[in-house]
Amino acid sequence: MIRISIIGLGLIGTSLGMALRSADVKESPLGEIEVIGFDRDQRAVKEARGRLAIDREARSLAEAVRDTHIAVVATPVQAVRELFGQLASLLPAGAVVTDVASTKAEVSRWAAASLPSGIAYVGGHPMAGKEQAGAAAADPDLFKGAIYCLTTSRGTPAPALEAVEAMVRTIGAKPYYIDPEEHDAYVAGISHLPLLLSVGLVHVTTSSPSWKELASLAASGFRDVSRLASGDPEMHRDILLTNRQGLTRWIDEMVRFLVEAREQLAAGDAGPLEELLQNAKAERDAWLETRPNLRPGEAEFEHRPEIERPNLLTFRLPNRKR
Amino acid sequence: MIRISIIGLGLIGTSLGMALRSADVKESPLGEIEVIGFDRDQRAVKEARGRLAIDREARSLAEAVRDTHIAVVATPVQAVRELFGQLASLLPAGAVVTDVASTKAEVSRWAAASLPSGIAYVGGHPMAGKEQAGAAAADPDLFKGAIYCLTTSRGTPAPALEAVEAMVRTIGAKPYYIDPEEHDAYVAGISHLPLLLSVGLVHVTTSSPSWKELASLAASGFRDVSRLASGDPEMHRDILLTNRQGLTRWIDEMVRFLVEAREQLAAGDAGPLEELLQNAKAERDAWLETRPNLRPGEAEFEHRPEIERPNLLTFRLPNRKR
Repeated sequence: MIRISIIGLGLIGTSLGMALRSADVKESPLGEIEVIGFDRDQRAVKEARGRLAIDREARSLAEAVRDTHIAVVATPVQAVRELFGQLASLLPAGAVVTDVASTKAEVSRWAAASLPSGIAYVGGHPMAGKEQAGAAAADPDLFKGAIYCLTTSRGTPAPALEAVEAMVRTIGAKPYYIDPEEHDAYVAGISHLPLLLSVGLVHVTTSSPSWKELASLAASGFRDVSRLASGDPEMHRDILLTNRQGLTRWIDEMVRFLVEAREQLAAGDAGPLEELLQNAKAERDAWLETRPNLRPGEAEFEHRPEIERPNLLTFRLPNRKR
Repeated sequence: MIRISIIGLGLIGTSLGMALRSADVKESPLGEIEVIGFDRDQRAVKEARGRLAIDREARSLAEAVRDTHIAVVATPVQAVRELFGQLASLLPAGAVVTDVASTKAEVSRWAAASLPSGIAYVGGHPMAGKEQAGAAAADPDLFKGAIYCLTTSRGTPAPALEAVEAMVRTIGAKPYYIDPEEHDAYVAGISHLPLLLSVGLVHVTTSSPSWKELASLAASGFRDVSRLASGDPEMHRDILLTNRQGLTRWIDEMVRFLVEAREQLAAGDAGPLEELLQNAKAERDAWLETRPNLRPGEAEFEHRPEIERPNLLTFRLPNRKR
């Protein structure tokens, strides 16, 4: 029996619980699982219970992780730091901590600074989401076929890694090993820049004195490009702030692009403009082709060989702290 | 019997034909309709025929408009100017010309410069579309419930206006009267800026040396914000070039936004950043609320009272030019 504690029952935490609990025990490399849920907000706990996302709820963080094997921190990024500090003295030695934060470099540094040597840390970031937040939007299939980034450091014990990888496979996601700094630079371009562009589009149009008229005319193009602006503001604030270094570079690229496009337009330059549009279409269409339903082919993402059911006892020591 | 000639059987032209031909004769203010189709590309004509978008095809522009009541120019913007010049000597006096171009100020000037006084012009722009181009993507329901912008000048005869408005109602769209210059300034913000942001996102990410890795990680956020980049490059080039004045202002606003956001990020300013994200979410959610399915309520868009079936004969003179 593997105990997994989910700290934070929002969209990701609750979806994770639902996915774990609906997994086939015989298929999962983890075998039988018990999911313990904790959230400071009782409404979230109630919602998660109602959605069968947890086997039992804990009334405190200490209770949530008392004899856990894997503690999943699924809170907004800014809360992660404090939680790592608290978990340091609450977790049983041999436990593994993972998180689901959208940025990984800063979070990895927090883990290294807070967690004692008996506790392993594996950074996680499922490339799946919705613009709706909260347990009420949870979906057990959220992670099916999705890339799940895993970051490690030199000292990460192999069994800890295998345990988290097994959890990722159990929910139907695809483990993708990546360096934390690289991860942040990449997601800054394909996740956080799109977010900022969405927010910027909404900001500049709704700030216009003509917004009332604009609103009448805005159609599906506006809806799609602005979609990410409807996401959770608190979560997005944290993501942008913890990834500001990576994002800044992309903002500069985007500003450069807009200034160039402005010059081409002012010059009435049909040639370069058409070339730009042709290329963008070709590149995006090619990207879509290789990613049917945004679920990449199995082979491409198998960075590691299939593993056996991990022997969690090899790194789990029984002397729990209470 | 009202004759409507569609010049250009792409997505919009073919969808228009399908919508007109599938309309209920008893419900339509136009009564019985004959749709004549013309396109220089024989494949488009064949596709349109197969989709029952036209009653008959014309082998030349002259044949297409010989005794037409309404000529709809549904080609890319840059072709419109030349077509207006050709139509000037081909159309029977009393005919109405309309177009479906995404920008209206420049097109209206072309109409005023090319069309003789016996030919009325009403600018049109259906706020409906798809990223797929061509007759093969046509859909008779494309215009159902959509805003259909109509632009007029001081000299537009009322019956011409009524004829085009009747056509718009027949296909289930909602006429929205607007000044051509205002139209362009507005759509620059809610259509052309989103397009440029989509293209820019694809451009900066796919130009990166890390694009291969970025491509693996890109998910639904990237997909949605980049969607418009998959549209027809030639059409988009024309749209952007004919609306460069309106668009330039919005590009400046967007650059200003990005530079400010960059400064807030660099300063680690959580407060203003969160306020920005909160506001953007609130504004977008409010916009979505008022536009369920992006189909606005009837009342809001009734700028003109319901009209009777227009008496086309009041402005249609019988002396056709052959």
